[in-house]
Amino acid sequence: MKRRNFIYTAGGTLLTGAALSLPTVATAKAEFNWKMVTAWPKNFPGLGTNANLLAKMITEMSGGRIKVKVYGARELVPAFEVFDTVSSGTAEMGHAGAYYWKGKSEATQFFSAVPFGLTAQEMNAWLYYGGGMELWRELYQPFGIIPAATGNTGVQMAGWFNKEIKTVDDLKGLKMRIPGLGGEVLRRAGGTTVNMPGGELFTSLQSGALDATEWVGPYNDLAFGFYKVAKYYYYPGWHEPGSTMEALINEKAFNALPKDLQQIVLTACKAANMDMISEYTARNNQALDTLINKHKVKVLPLPDDVLKALKKLSEQVVQELAQKDDKSRKIYESVSAFKQQVMKWDAISEQAFLRARSLPS
Amino acid sequence: MKRRNFIYTAGGTLLTGAALSLPTVATAKAEFNWKMVTAWPKNFPGLGTNANLLAKMITEMSGGRIKVKVYGARELVPAFEVFDTVSSGTAEMGHAGAYYWKGKSEATQFFSAVPFGLTAQEMNAWLYYGGGMELWRELYQPFGIIPAATGNTGVQMAGWFNKEIKTVDDLKGLKMRIPGLGGEVLRRAGGTTVNMPGGELFTSLQSGALDATEWVGPYNDLAFGFYKVAKYYYYPGWHEPGSTMEALINEKAFNALPKDLQQIVLTACKAANMDMISEYTARNNQALDTLINKHKVKVLPLPDDVLKALKKLSEQVVQELAQKDDKSRKIYESVSAFKQQVMKWDAISEQAFLRARSLPS
Repeated sequence: MKRRNFIYTAGGTLLTGAALSLPTVATAKAEFNWKMVTAWPKNFPGLGTNANLLAKMITEMSGGRIKVKVYGARELVPAFEVFDTVSSGTAEMGHAGAYYWKGKSEATQFFSAVPFGLTAQEMNAWLYYGGGMELWRELYQPFGIIPAATGNTGVQMAGWFNKEIKTVDDLKGLKMRIPGLGGEVLRRAGGTTVNMPGGELFTSLQSGALDATEWVGPYNDLAFGFYKVAKYYYYPGWHEPGSTMEALINEKAFNALPKDLQQIVLTACKAANMDMISEYTARNNQALDTLINKHKVKVLPLPDDVLKALKKLSEQVVQELAQKDDKSRKIYESVSAFKQQVMKWDAISEQAFLRARSLPS
Repeated sequence: MKRRNFIYTAGGTLLTGAALSLPTVATAKAEFNWKMVTAWPKNFPGLGTNANLLAKMITEMSGGRIKVKVYGARELVPAFEVFDTVSSGTAEMGHAGAYYWKGKSEATQFFSAVPFGLTAQEMNAWLYYGGGMELWRELYQPFGIIPAATGNTGVQMAGWFNKEIKTVDDLKGLKMRIPGLGGEVLRRAGGTTVNMPGGELFTSLQSGALDATEWVGPYNDLAFGFYKVAKYYYYPGWHEPGSTMEALINEKAFNALPKDLQQIVLTACKAANMDMISEYTARNNQALDTLINKHKVKVLPLPDDVLKALKKLSEQVVQELAQKDDKSRKIYESVSAFKQQVMKWDAISEQAFLRARSLPS
């Protein structure tokens, strides 16, 4: 999923599925009035609501000494200007996804979603205990921004399709909305990627202008109503296995805070990070149940041969990304060494357990 | 893994592998001096260090208005008295695992580790977004304790064995150190469970007094040196797929805090929860590499037939637990409904992705 494409539902209604969490009345006079600009429509379920939660936690924990006001995309600046707005200090905080800033540095993409990359749990392990955070800070330092992980969607879905995918050849000529590195992989597999706003996806699938689109997962996809216009719902989301959301903090504004408030801001991000993956896991699970049992959606696996081909192409694309500049190479080396090792651990822990638990009795 | 059994290494040395995180110098006079009693040896890697981190975050975020002093097991009270000590208000906080309190209520076991139960990510989804937290609070309410999740070890390992497990019959007569619900399952499979302190495990494996022992995972197990006295390291840890650690907060002490400090305490727990699973994921991964490549440990999967038999017995044991009282039944119904649903989501997300990523090229 990428920014600006999920603002409105097919019917043009702004999505406000989740309750708005307003900061409670502060107990002290605000010493710091902060603006948080976001890449999401205000209150967008899961993403916009995570920004609200983050602001609420900071305001509440500081007893109102920092008041953080959240702005939806376009309320103050458009989604794609979040980075510059925080960099310049016009807003003290931002809430977005790092891959939006590949125009600043290609390497930013390593901190959001990489095809066949790390899952949410692995990503957080790399960031907090594998050197990832230090590399991310180094990358944003020239822009006067301190980054923090503030959420994760978990494994996304491969998307909604009106064409059955039985072999790699079925990807040839496939008109699909799939941005970023995943889009590049699909193009190399012979597909055509189409970029269009979220509001047009529903009618484009209906008219045949699109054969397929990826979005997020059951929770967000159910709200969009894709099940009404697409035949198949494919898994797994090879292109975004654990999409990380970022908080952006203006360095000067952060340095101006006393130490207790600095800790409050950073700890709130870590708690919000735990919150989002929990929310997505619980709500995807409920929404999947609704999609299958109420809307009779056909949920299909991508065949192994297709996955293998996509994996091979993904490796090419990611290795080319690593060659773009020194920073990209350095980050690639760190994350790929971590991935090689953690895959072995996951094979005998999460993966082996999930398999064991699902063995027929 | 259970308390009191992992205090000393085989050599009798107190484990202090992780750096001690001392609270920084406070910026204000403490309004609240809190004691945190823990079920772990002071600074025990992963568990004791999580308690330190939690105390540090609370102290730092409050600018020293709450000072939290951490006590290792036996420094103030023994591990098994943590619950009563927090309940009485002698200590304002505790750090332990909920299954230690099954003497208070059998239902506590649902909030730590259940054989073939939820993984870390699923457990947090159930707690924060599936009604689990409300049930946990209800369970501890009569004791004047507010619980919070503050960490998770992730999937543990099945353990260290000196006997190869090829069929279910190999479990018969197996002398294994495996406590809790997992131990009950093993007994029903014909094994003998042995309870002994951590310091005796090494020599018992060496002498043949024990055929096997479970512990945690590569990170903690490597430190114990089990690879020197056991032939096989089995996976996956069917008995503890996502062991949750708990913070216990005395209700009166909590209610005496102003609202900002209450938020600081609860948010710190959530951030510490994110921290521990990240630490275990990263460090298990590194330690596994050391065990395999340096110490040439034989890492083996439990055969499917054995896992199936253990799963069937686990279902019996957990269903019997659910019948103990009304609270247990209510919690069982909530968690098992959640599990049935989330397994379907995991099958097409985490599980399908991990499988796809590990397909041979």
